[in-house]
Amino acid sequence: MDDRMRKQLAFALEIDKEKNIFRQTHLSGHGRNENDAEHAWHMALMAYLLKEYANEEIDIAKVMVMCLIHDIVEIDAGDTYAYDEEGLKTQKTREEAAKERIFSLLPDDQKQEMISLFDEFEAYGSPEARFAHALDNLQPLMLNTSNDGGDWKEHGVSAEYVYGRQIKTKLGSRKLYEVSDELIRGQIRKGNLPDRKE
Amino acid sequence: MDDRMRKQLAFALEIDKEKNIFRQTHLSGHGRNENDAEHAWHMALMAYLLKEYANEEIDIAKVMVMCLIHDIVEIDAGDTYAYDEEGLKTQKTREEAAKERIFSLLPDDQKQEMISLFDEFEAYGSPEARFAHALDNLQPLMLNTSNDGGDWKEHGVSAEYVYGRQIKTKLGSRKLYEVSDELIRGQIRKGNLPDRKE
Repeated sequence: MDDRMRKQLAFALEIDKEKNIFRQTHLSGHGRNENDAEHAWHMALMAYLLKEYANEEIDIAKVMVMCLIHDIVEIDAGDTYAYDEEGLKTQKTREEAAKERIFSLLPDDQKQEMISLFDEFEAYGSPEARFAHALDNLQPLMLNTSNDGGDWKEHGVSAEYVYGRQIKTKLGSRKLYEVSDELIRGQIRKGNLPDRKE
Repeated sequence: MDDRMRKQLAFALEIDKEKNIFRQTHLSGHGRNENDAEHAWHMALMAYLLKEYANEEIDIAKVMVMCLIHDIVEIDAGDTYAYDEEGLKTQKTREEAAKERIFSLLPDDQKQEMISLFDEFEAYGSPEARFAHALDNLQPLMLNTSNDGGDWKEHGVSAEYVYGRQIKTKLGSRKLYEVSDELIRGQIRKGNLPDRKE
């Protein structure tokens, strides 16, 4: 096995750890917490199936790779809940260090490519990044809606906060934002999501 | 929300159940059993990173989608271990029924597309299908090797059996087959894999 292959397999084995990084979102059917690998699988496949709704022309392979890798840094940095104000303050620093360590396992050309895709995603820097973010928002919204807003209730999250996050879905897909808005309004009507934080 | 979107989201929610289908493979670090969604995520990303080793020219987006969907039928049909001779006899019938039920949740054009990709994968019917299979073999081999062949020991699997499955990796990637062969030979040398079934 040559050095290039050895590095590629070392990276492939390292990212197995993403399956042990658990999110705040719960599986449908009021199941256990979801992990990052499952979330990435789900949003990559949803991206493919919903690609007709992207605002701009997209390279779907690029979108799927972004979806698949966007949480790899959490192997070191841990999951930061979308509504965790304290955690969000240090998230960037923790994730930068993780990005450098983990992607450095790859051959240099692939390290650069992965970091470039990761940064582009983080910066909403392309039609692909914006569409991938739409799925990063819609996938947990769909699960949480199917569970009567259990994750919001647990964290005392308000509709105002949820909209604050979901509003960026518009950047990637106006159509998926409309759907998100419909889902959120349904949850407010059912009493699963208060207008303001208690 | 129109009928098309409603169907797409119904499918997206249904496949969440794949996260509850557990395989015989264990996570690295002698961890818990892996589930189908995690396996699909891992092999899709490995496909992207190892695409330079495909025997033939491939459309990598198509490979990734095949990886992402190839185990969806197991939501109904359950996981059939690669070395479970009894289960393998009924696998096809169980998976055909599952395929029809689950993909029928999608709008008809997408149902046809997904079934076509699934069937192509099952039949090794294209360069993409053959390369996706190479990853379907390599990903668990990599994990099991990292765990000193624990899954083989548990099931009393012999090197002869392992080769019987891994040999097809050659169809998609001669280079990845060489790597697989190197990994297997290493496991035989370590005494983790007997030459013949006991």
